[in-house]
Amino acid sequence: MDKLLIVGTVAFDAIETPFGKTDKILGGAATFIGLAASQFDVDSAIISVVGDDFPQEYLDLLTDRKIDISALEIVKGGKTFFWKGLYHNDLNTRDTLATELNVLADFKPVVPESYNDAEVVMLGNLHPIVQLDVINQLKKRPRIIILDTMNFWMDNALNDLMEVIKQIDVLTINDEEARQLTGEYSLVKAAQKIFTMGPKYVVIKKGEHGALLFHEDQIFFAPALPLEEVFDPTGAGDTFAGGFAGYLAASEDSSFENMKKAVIHGSNLASFSVEKFGTERMLQLNHKEITERLHQFKRLTQFDIELQ
Amino acid sequence: MDKLLIVGTVAFDAIETPFGKTDKILGGAATFIGLAASQFDVDSAIISVVGDDFPQEYLDLLTDRKIDISALEIVKGGKTFFWKGLYHNDLNTRDTLATELNVLADFKPVVPESYNDAEVVMLGNLHPIVQLDVINQLKKRPRIIILDTMNFWMDNALNDLMEVIKQIDVLTINDEEARQLTGEYSLVKAAQKIFTMGPKYVVIKKGEHGALLFHEDQIFFAPALPLEEVFDPTGAGDTFAGGFAGYLAASEDSSFENMKKAVIHGSNLASFSVEKFGTERMLQLNHKEITERLHQFKRLTQFDIELQ
Repeated sequence: MDKLLIVGTVAFDAIETPFGKTDKILGGAATFIGLAASQFDVDSAIISVVGDDFPQEYLDLLTDRKIDISALEIVKGGKTFFWKGLYHNDLNTRDTLATELNVLADFKPVVPESYNDAEVVMLGNLHPIVQLDVINQLKKRPRIIILDTMNFWMDNALNDLMEVIKQIDVLTINDEEARQLTGEYSLVKAAQKIFTMGPKYVVIKKGEHGALLFHEDQIFFAPALPLEEVFDPTGAGDTFAGGFAGYLAASEDSSFENMKKAVIHGSNLASFSVEKFGTERMLQLNHKEITERLHQFKRLTQFDIELQ
Repeated sequence: MDKLLIVGTVAFDAIETPFGKTDKILGGAATFIGLAASQFDVDSAIISVVGDDFPQEYLDLLTDRKIDISALEIVKGGKTFFWKGLYHNDLNTRDTLATELNVLADFKPVVPESYNDAEVVMLGNLHPIVQLDVINQLKKRPRIIILDTMNFWMDNALNDLMEVIKQIDVLTINDEEARQLTGEYSLVKAAQKIFTMGPKYVVIKKGEHGALLFHEDQIFFAPALPLEEVFDPTGAGDTFAGGFAGYLAASEDSSFENMKKAVIHGSNLASFSVEKFGTERMLQLNHKEITERLHQFKRLTQFDIELQ
């Protein structure tokens, strides 16, 4: 069994959608990644930071799922990172109403000794300097480093971001961000340009339109499951990344063939995540539901055209 | 071998994209549908109308592909339907710069006797009254009637459109139009609502994001092939519909399983259509290229997750 090291935010989210609103609930990239990855047979640890306003109950939710949180720093007298967002009617666009960095502002990640030889490292969305700091603390080169990022860092820390992108194996990024990073409208061309920046694999997330996996001249596509209702898209991209990384760690195989399966597993878990607010759906999820929905993914995409 | 009856425009198009512009070239829904369907082993006929300004050379392109044009009326002294469009930089949106109905304004379709027992009828985008007129002239109920339409008829002839939708088996429509027709944002809900209007099958075309096939509680998804460059999207939807209808006619099978293959064949042909202006790419296409690209579709979508 591979070790999976996860870096990213553990946070409070307040979310408003056309269907309702929440007070401060459990959120953060590392939270969603960790919960998704915990569906697979992996040892995982989260590196992150919270304030002492962060409830023990939320920490327990992580340890209950056997996620090692010894490197989740709790800052005495500090306040946890807080994000507040408002989704528009189509749920495809949102306004950020508040971002309070709080303890995240001075965060110095410390890789725990038991994880400095992790085979799989998932760098969730955070300042690229923090992501790079984690890579530099590793004792040996992981089998695979996956990086998730967003347009905010392209706008505000592009040089640092390019530095970390050089060091990684897989970049996961959404379609508009891929276009912004490369100046290419075609996602095929954008992926090719990202290859020249360092990564050998690129996953372009298209939200309700699915995800594309690129490697050399190979392309694989996983649709998003068409749903009657999307309730809250918060964390869907992180859940996808967590499922992707968790499956790659559990299967100890990072071939392209296996990465295709990882993309399907990531899409599958993300399809649950959006059904309720925040982490709610991920916390209730059972193995039977997951398998049933994988069958749905098969029926959705598999066809039988005989070719010479 | 089934007979395929096609109704739709045969037209002049003038197209401007970021990559170049054309004078009046061969266009029209029935043209693209007929060319795509001619890739399969079918007997097909086009019902349409042109003016005597329409070049013999264009008519020959259709008869060369064994498309019966005996019901393609040529109006003496009339002018052919003309459409002029300007695509924006992302090629996803376009402005209509000119629409000259010309001979289309007074068009009365006449179903040729040899096709009034056609097994497959493809009603391309046209006034719903013309589409309905064709259905009413048929001697026997076809095995399958496919209807393509657009938002223009929802805005301007909704009652007539609803009348023809009642009579058909498959509605092909794009995502925004499905939302407009049903008032549902979720495409799953939109398809369910369309089922109550008559059709047993709904194909929702999402352009570069692929196409969804709905039937009862089953869903199948075909991606669009990710391309380095899309040159001209004109006719892609009609090419898709032509491939879909052509395959269903040639295979004499309209089961859901076979319709999945038809959606892949339609998507495959549409991926060629957008590579050059107008019908140019479709006119050069050979069987080997088509088969190679079907292999690409398989590699793009097929995965191997073992499930209980």
